[in-house]
Amino acid sequence: MSHDIAHQVSIALGDRSYAISIASGLLSQPSAWQGLPRAATALIVTNDTVGPLYAADLTRSLSAHYPKVLTLSLPDGEAYKTWETLQSIFDVLLQNACDRKTVLFALGGGVVGDITGFAAACYMRGVPFVQVPTTLLAQVDSSVGGKTAINHPIGKNMVGAFYQPERVVCDLQTLQSLPARELSAGLAEVIKYGPIADMLFFDWIEQHIDALLQRDAQALAYAVQRSCEIKAHVVGQDERESGLRAILNFGHTFGHAIEAGLGFGQWLHGEAVGCGMVMAAQLSQRLGLVDAAFTERLSALIARAGLPTVGPALGVEAYLHHMRVDKKAEAGDIRFVLIDPPGTALVRGAPDALVADVLQACCR
Amino acid sequence: MSHDIAHQVSIALGDRSYAISIASGLLSQPSAWQGLPRAATALIVTNDTVGPLYAADLTRSLSAHYPKVLTLSLPDGEAYKTWETLQSIFDVLLQNACDRKTVLFALGGGVVGDITGFAAACYMRGVPFVQVPTTLLAQVDSSVGGKTAINHPIGKNMVGAFYQPERVVCDLQTLQSLPARELSAGLAEVIKYGPIADMLFFDWIEQHIDALLQRDAQALAYAVQRSCEIKAHVVGQDERESGLRAILNFGHTFGHAIEAGLGFGQWLHGEAVGCGMVMAAQLSQRLGLVDAAFTERLSALIARAGLPTVGPALGVEAYLHHMRVDKKAEAGDIRFVLIDPPGTALVRGAPDALVADVLQACCR
Repeated sequence: MSHDIAHQVSIALGDRSYAISIASGLLSQPSAWQGLPRAATALIVTNDTVGPLYAADLTRSLSAHYPKVLTLSLPDGEAYKTWETLQSIFDVLLQNACDRKTVLFALGGGVVGDITGFAAACYMRGVPFVQVPTTLLAQVDSSVGGKTAINHPIGKNMVGAFYQPERVVCDLQTLQSLPARELSAGLAEVIKYGPIADMLFFDWIEQHIDALLQRDAQALAYAVQRSCEIKAHVVGQDERESGLRAILNFGHTFGHAIEAGLGFGQWLHGEAVGCGMVMAAQLSQRLGLVDAAFTERLSALIARAGLPTVGPALGVEAYLHHMRVDKKAEAGDIRFVLIDPPGTALVRGAPDALVADVLQACCR
Repeated sequence: MSHDIAHQVSIALGDRSYAISIASGLLSQPSAWQGLPRAATALIVTNDTVGPLYAADLTRSLSAHYPKVLTLSLPDGEAYKTWETLQSIFDVLLQNACDRKTVLFALGGGVVGDITGFAAACYMRGVPFVQVPTTLLAQVDSSVGGKTAINHPIGKNMVGAFYQPERVVCDLQTLQSLPARELSAGLAEVIKYGPIADMLFFDWIEQHIDALLQRDAQALAYAVQRSCEIKAHVVGQDERESGLRAILNFGHTFGHAIEAGLGFGQWLHGEAVGCGMVMAAQLSQRLGLVDAAFTERLSALIARAGLPTVGPALGVEAYLHHMRVDKKAEAGDIRFVLIDPPGTALVRGAPDALVADVLQACCR
């Protein structure tokens, strides 16, 4: 893999600003790991799928900077994004007498990033951490912007913190080992950035969807870079989601209902978001905000990315119930991210009857 | 109780600034609860000792501002400052479909304040909360400055967040129901502010220690106000304890070792801090930073406050071990808060041999 595809995106958050490095081979490239906070110990948190592939490379790179480099491998999967797993990170830190300068490295996908980030936010009231995302979804979305969390039995990501990493290091090489289903799931979050922020990028994705599915290095590099630029721009204006940032949840309100209704883990998060975007576009259309041509165009691209565009038939009441406990809901009123016009998103409510129409049209 | 003793201290932290209100009868005074964030629901978190005394008053006051006011009563004591208790707060919030505008009220001492503040920091990545401290220790120290945490089996306050409240409301009337031992424990933290920041305040405490022990309203009001002013000044300069704020831990390094060595809950935190200040003064003296007259004067005041000045004979090695896992320690080097000269504190290391001498002189 060539090293000439190298990008750097900055995320501007005052004294919490940081860089996102995007290139192939960064895991073993010494320069990617320079200038991080000094400490006696670094702890790599990974999982049983990613660890065997990449933990040794990262350990080698970090050993040049930290006297002691520990690795903790978690079981793989959303089911382990729990307090018990979080506790196992604290146990390792305390058993190794890690002080509050210790740097945590999250090597893996969204689950590893979210839980490691939350561990860093809480250990001794906050230690530095670095995101090293190895899935497309984590590289284009979850590793950027400082949202960290664990799940509660009653709801996903209900316990967490806004806590920014020191740096995000996206080694594009890791995407070559990603299962096809996870690649598609990541593309859902890439596609998302078009309707909410940049229809020129949407055009580009339409033109390069086959190259992306074939894991063309140049196409992946641009998709990750542009996604991170848009996310950085939005987060830079609204770090704690008091307004604008909510547009990044396009497709997520319906998507969370699919995940919760089927039981988390049945559909991948990106799959649910893909289908949820079709529903949100349909709702936008029924509210007169976009035309049918846009909805069809979005739906076609989502299908080409290998994602579902038809929702599971959970029943309207189940969908509404799960959407009412979404974090964006206020006093039980569901807040939808809608498109008006393509390239711009807004957050608003919608009549239950209209939402029911959309669900009936989109599910079977 | 007269309403004419009313003070307001401001804590300046940019957009996280807030006010500390100090007066008798605030729990049932409508004006104390105006101007807080609006929400559908307020949750009062208290404990089984304080709740029966004050939760009804607070509920009545808050009912004028929130459509729904819930109360959760936790078991009383440091032993319950755990993840399980924290989880019980999240359970109540989610079972009542509380959204991310919900306001939490911490009605109780340091344990209730720390755990409720941490719950507020994490629930849906952060909801507003108000500190309503009902012990002297919480009013003069733990409720102010945004340190929140729970304990880990291996160490106290190891998992937490810096998260500022919307407001601190100190109803001095609540101090009248405080057990004598807890009043003394709170006085340890009041006395602390003298040597580290203000020897004129130390003079005042010496002159008013009997009035404070007799719970004279005017004396308590001034002690709480001046303590909060000093704490606000320090925290305003160093919110996240990257430097100066560590001086607030005067007596706490030795104190934590006493608590950990005996098992948490044997000595009250304030008792351990009182004794720890004597040890830290002794260490300062042996390093030539203060004279014997100062050490004796501090020790005498701590004794008059009803606090222990002689430490438990845990053995030097046990003390050193517990101090090495203190959050201030770096790579196993213990950092002590020392006095140089009276009215000014600094943070530095000290030779183990000298620390051993101090422990041998101060324990039996």
